[in-house]
Amino acid sequence: MRTWRLAVLACLCAAAAAAPAEAKTHHHTWNITYQYKSPDCFRKLAVTINGESPGPTIRAAQGDTLVVTVHNMLDTENTAIHWHGIRQIGSPWADGTAGVTQCPILPGETFTYRFVVDRPGTYMYHAHYGMQRVAGLDGMLVVSVPDGVAEPFAYDGEHTVLLMDWWHQSVYEQAVGLASVPMVFVGEPQSLLINGRGVFNCSPPAASNGGGAACNAFGGECGWPTLFTASPGKTYRLRIGSLTSLASLSFEIEGHTMTVVEADGYYVTPVVVKNLFIYSGETYSVLVTADQDPSRSYWAASHVVSRDPTKTAPGRAVVRYASAAVDHPRTPPPTGPRWNDTASRVAQSRSFAALPGHVEPPPARPDRVLLLLNTQSKIDNHTKWAINGVSLSFPATPYLVAMKHGLRGEFDQRPPPDSYDHGSLNLSSPPASLAVRHAAYRLALGSVVDVVLQNTAIPPPNGRSETHPWHLHGHDFWVLGYGEGKFVPEVDGPGLNAASARGGAVMKNTVALHPMGWTAVRFRASNPGVWLFHCHLEAHVYMGMGVVFEEGVDVLPRLPASIMGCGRTKGHHY
Amino acid sequence: MRTWRLAVLACLCAAAAAAPAEAKTHHHTWNITYQYKSPDCFRKLAVTINGESPGPTIRAAQGDTLVVTVHNMLDTENTAIHWHGIRQIGSPWADGTAGVTQCPILPGETFTYRFVVDRPGTYMYHAHYGMQRVAGLDGMLVVSVPDGVAEPFAYDGEHTVLLMDWWHQSVYEQAVGLASVPMVFVGEPQSLLINGRGVFNCSPPAASNGGGAACNAFGGECGWPTLFTASPGKTYRLRIGSLTSLASLSFEIEGHTMTVVEADGYYVTPVVVKNLFIYSGETYSVLVTADQDPSRSYWAASHVVSRDPTKTAPGRAVVRYASAAVDHPRTPPPTGPRWNDTASRVAQSRSFAALPGHVEPPPARPDRVLLLLNTQSKIDNHTKWAINGVSLSFPATPYLVAMKHGLRGEFDQRPPPDSYDHGSLNLSSPPASLAVRHAAYRLALGSVVDVVLQNTAIPPPNGRSETHPWHLHGHDFWVLGYGEGKFVPEVDGPGLNAASARGGAVMKNTVALHPMGWTAVRFRASNPGVWLFHCHLEAHVYMGMGVVFEEGVDVLPRLPASIMGCGRTKGHHY
Repeated sequence: MRTWRLAVLACLCAAAAAAPAEAKTHHHTWNITYQYKSPDCFRKLAVTINGESPGPTIRAAQGDTLVVTVHNMLDTENTAIHWHGIRQIGSPWADGTAGVTQCPILPGETFTYRFVVDRPGTYMYHAHYGMQRVAGLDGMLVVSVPDGVAEPFAYDGEHTVLLMDWWHQSVYEQAVGLASVPMVFVGEPQSLLINGRGVFNCSPPAASNGGGAACNAFGGECGWPTLFTASPGKTYRLRIGSLTSLASLSFEIEGHTMTVVEADGYYVTPVVVKNLFIYSGETYSVLVTADQDPSRSYWAASHVVSRDPTKTAPGRAVVRYASAAVDHPRTPPPTGPRWNDTASRVAQSRSFAALPGHVEPPPARPDRVLLLLNTQSKIDNHTKWAINGVSLSFPATPYLVAMKHGLRGEFDQRPPPDSYDHGSLNLSSPPASLAVRHAAYRLALGSVVDVVLQNTAIPPPNGRSETHPWHLHGHDFWVLGYGEGKFVPEVDGPGLNAASARGGAVMKNTVALHPMGWTAVRFRASNPGVWLFHCHLEAHVYMGMGVVFEEGVDVLPRLPASIMGCGRTKGHHY
Repeated sequence: MRTWRLAVLACLCAAAAAAPAEAKTHHHTWNITYQYKSPDCFRKLAVTINGESPGPTIRAAQGDTLVVTVHNMLDTENTAIHWHGIRQIGSPWADGTAGVTQCPILPGETFTYRFVVDRPGTYMYHAHYGMQRVAGLDGMLVVSVPDGVAEPFAYDGEHTVLLMDWWHQSVYEQAVGLASVPMVFVGEPQSLLINGRGVFNCSPPAASNGGGAACNAFGGECGWPTLFTASPGKTYRLRIGSLTSLASLSFEIEGHTMTVVEADGYYVTPVVVKNLFIYSGETYSVLVTADQDPSRSYWAASHVVSRDPTKTAPGRAVVRYASAAVDHPRTPPPTGPRWNDTASRVAQSRSFAALPGHVEPPPARPDRVLLLLNTQSKIDNHTKWAINGVSLSFPATPYLVAMKHGLRGEFDQRPPPDSYDHGSLNLSSPPASLAVRHAAYRLALGSVVDVVLQNTAIPPPNGRSETHPWHLHGHDFWVLGYGEGKFVPEVDGPGLNAASARGGAVMKNTVALHPMGWTAVRFRASNPGVWLFHCHLEAHVYMGMGVVFEEGVDVLPRLPASIMGCGRTKGHHY
């Protein structure tokens, strides 16, 4: 253990030393309040940053420090903000995951997130507390390469594109339904938003998917799509992120192809696509050249895939050539790809490869393999998602604090299972979920861990297998492969090491688990802290679809008092 | 100070010793959750206790101990529960006032309230955090006299009657309006509830006071009034409490008079009324004899007074004689008294006198006099209520903790003013509110304090003077008098001591400040702790209409860690 401790400290020092001498510190002050918003012409309360939802795009350069001072100005509701894709090396207490890395920020309180953005790329932030993210507390975080460093592609301008889905019900109403017996699902979103703007069809047929509520807001800018301006002949980098609550999306721009060059902060070998499939928690950079008729404008559109899209108004924005006569295209908007064409989505997932020379290759083999089976079934009459039979819940004392301080009574000391009975598994009739627990996998610091996510079908009458985008906090992972049907360790296991050896594995922080398939990733557990790994669909993690990884909490320094105040960490202590 | 300390400790010991030997401990376990409720046939989320709103009526006998274990099972919202009318002698940390006596109870946490109910009487409980009470977290608390002790009146049966007003907007929406620039008032309630049931007129004209929302719930018991059963010839004690958010009420029973025998836990000389005026935070016991035509049922009704009642559906319940053929009366419901007849309400306030031999007379004179002027005006463009220019806000660290632990940076060390310029006061054009502060009055332990509440008119265009029911935590006070217009210390001050000497002053914990009038009370600051004194209208205290009293925090023992966790009380401490 002494050896590890020294090795990790050396590693952290090296990282600090590697930061450019001109690294800057960027200060942001955020007031969190409720505000009425009408992104799709339905007026409802949103949880906002300085009055806005989505919040501002944060920009910094690699090696810079971000200091975000969050004033919770809500009256009775707490908050916590996660910096999605930032590994928080040396600052695990700044990950912003309530129940895991911190106590929530109480009304009237101020919490300061301070962390280094150690890698360039396209990232995001969002509330990570209950289902609060769904109320609109999110935004994008763009980390540029340092001055003087060239990127492996060229572009003339840049736009950020934040994709969301949107409900007219409040998050409280959604959560009550999910927790009810019988469970009442949140249903399909009423609309899709692009940079916080959407279009909801207020006429009665569409309104029937709004709990009976039709549009209740008009005028102003309500219903106007976001406008992206392009100069003819120029090439733009679109930094696209998805923070949908439920929807997997296809994004496209009428009449244009997109060249994917970055995924989750890592360069990929360029791939040209017409439709970019993007799952909640993912980011991509695509290059788009304004090489079409310069006298007009073009639709950008997001569509639901992998779930029935007919109840959801597609997302629409406009790419307007600077020379165009009018803002709005006169063409019909794109209709999107076939929503239930799983094969084309799996193919696109497989099409991405790390750009040679830009991504460290994965270790040759793992020290430990976790086979994680997801199941949806009832526990004490409540519908729950579980992983290897264990449905995750968040303890009153955050895992990080409980583990660092040895509060063994605050979480379940029995580790959840590393595997499941894959021999007898029937994907269409998987075993039942067993228990709701505060459980965590303890990983050896520095060990290499493979995780194979195994999808199943949910019980009848639905019986479908869904797309689950899994997001890992505190690390990036190499994607070793996507498979169909059952993962068979004896057959498919060696293939993972072979894939690793072949090279080209992309690194990501979020990966899709496709319907009735499996997805394998590898990561190095080298970031002391406690980290959530979970389905990024908000309803799913709310119902328990996640696991917690701990590594090296013993080598962490004393935790800041600011993350405490809940569970067993109350007191007079200063 | 040593003398006081000994005196207080002796007093507490004496109180404990006075408890009957057979004192019981009553345990209650409460799960706080959101549930859909349709009390008036409009379906919305309520904050509930074990699924119910209002919550259960708690019963105990004088000297018993109540232990209420509160599990906050909300996802992102905190709570705190105040035991309204219980003085919490020796347990100031159990008063349940977030920001004053405790940190709020976080989601996933459990807080145990433990306190002695030292006086018989009719009390209540409710959330005391933001405007959460308005979401339905409330109920009644009945403390009976010990076995073998006779009350000074007789009755055959008892009913509890909890009066509320009800909005279709959520509390979050209400609060956003109040905090907006310009302020958007919560408006008149849509309906009045009696024991959690109300009647909302779903037809369009009435629905226009529902933000456009008509009834959205039907069937089940929705719309059925509460039924009180009475046997012909018997006399019933109705324990009536009001936890309205805004409305002052008149309560009556068709065809019956009511004899008032208790107010806020103290016996009063019986007063016969047709309409009982009851203000938010007050409780009364009335005796009603079922001496009318036994073949029918009778309406009980609550009506808004002191504000325009026309936008609010009156509250209705039914008193059904056990011998009646049908449940529902065939008579039209009572129409209520004239809502703007202030004089009759002041007269009723003045009509109450302590029952001789049952209420300790007030001290002859005060050690300190506080003249408290309420004003509504703008501070930094926000509409605020203020007392002597100071608008109250709640610090991140509760006053009790900050004061006991000497955290002087957590609240404003400058005491708020004891008085105002009463010489130049124009009630129709009072001075402006000055500042929002975390301020408190420090009272000498054991001192006698007079408070004169002075009402004013709010600014044009409204220009009205409202009824403000003021509630004192931790103490009961003697009501020395109600006056019209300006309180003139030189003229009216001596009258207060005269009233005191005359005897018969009622003791209460909540008293009405009538429009354009003043109300004077006296209390003994003999309960070590920190105590809120505030207008019990939820929107008004939200806008700053309250003050904080501290007395004797130095003689308190170490505070329990369970009340901490917010502000400066975070840490690893066990």
